[in-house]
Amino acid sequence: MKDDTPVRRSPVSLADCNLSRSFELVGDRWTLLILRSALYGIRRFDDFQADLDIPRTVLSNRLAGLVESGILEKRAYREEGQRSRVEYPLTDMGRALMLPFMAMTQWGDKYLSDGVMPLTLRSRKTGERISVAYTDEQGRAVSFADIEAVIDPDARKRAARKRKPAKGG
Amino acid sequence: MKDDTPVRRSPVSLADCNLSRSFELVGDRWTLLILRSALYGIRRFDDFQADLDIPRTVLSNRLAGLVESGILEKRAYREEGQRSRVEYPLTDMGRALMLPFMAMTQWGDKYLSDGVMPLTLRSRKTGERISVAYTDEQGRAVSFADIEAVIDPDARKRAARKRKPAKGG
Repeated sequence: MKDDTPVRRSPVSLADCNLSRSFELVGDRWTLLILRSALYGIRRFDDFQADLDIPRTVLSNRLAGLVESGILEKRAYREEGQRSRVEYPLTDMGRALMLPFMAMTQWGDKYLSDGVMPLTLRSRKTGERISVAYTDEQGRAVSFADIEAVIDPDARKRAARKRKPAKGG
Repeated sequence: MKDDTPVRRSPVSLADCNLSRSFELVGDRWTLLILRSALYGIRRFDDFQADLDIPRTVLSNRLAGLVESGILEKRAYREEGQRSRVEYPLTDMGRALMLPFMAMTQWGDKYLSDGVMPLTLRSRKTGERISVAYTDEQGRAVSFADIEAVIDPDARKRAARKRKPAKGG
């Protein structure tokens, strides 16, 4: 029997999608784990190495990539009585990964952990439990059922045309 | 000069952390991209293959892993006049990845895209722009500066002890 079901593709191409672009920078297992450690406050090569038991060449390669991407900064510092050292603090761009990472943790809390949560977020002001959720423009949580995705597959092309007007135009 | 700075480690071990557990299941580049396609509605082997240009053995291996993890389901179906086929729809657990993936997209929108957003979320009711954010127990958005992480590194051990009381106790 013939199969003539048409091929289905994602409405936004890999090159245009800001999710696949993000995965290009952070979407491999070691990079994700390095960023997890970084968000826990780890900054030094030897500490990343001990925290993750990661091969040193792999760590070196991934840190260089994260510095190049602008997610980590490479910075020399010297503590009293110590030799000069290098550390890799998160940039603002790197710290902003906390939100997707906490959303991922929440997913793990729900589906992988039998309800055991070694890390929770609390409000400094009220002590209330903090979650990650969809919110509207007034900052009110919205249920997933009330949300739709609006897709503009040519957004990037149009933006490029706007930035570079055609010659002779 | 001697270096006697103590080694720093993450306060939650990799084995206990629901973020690293999540990364074990979904944290490699191909798996992330397969899930991206799945969230865009792709379900069939050949469609994933065409969407991602992924080697067939890699795709086959990753799909099997995602079925084993409970993120995708493997299901036979038959369309009118077609041969029987297999599809891989997302389970509830898989669909729940939309939130971390949208948080990651939002990060990409901000840091990687020059403001170009081929995909946006809107409220079905009001048409308002929807974001991913930290929210309190009343469902109100909370700024990152007002949040603290509370860490309980022994949460898993304690939960295990509670489930299996010591013999002779």
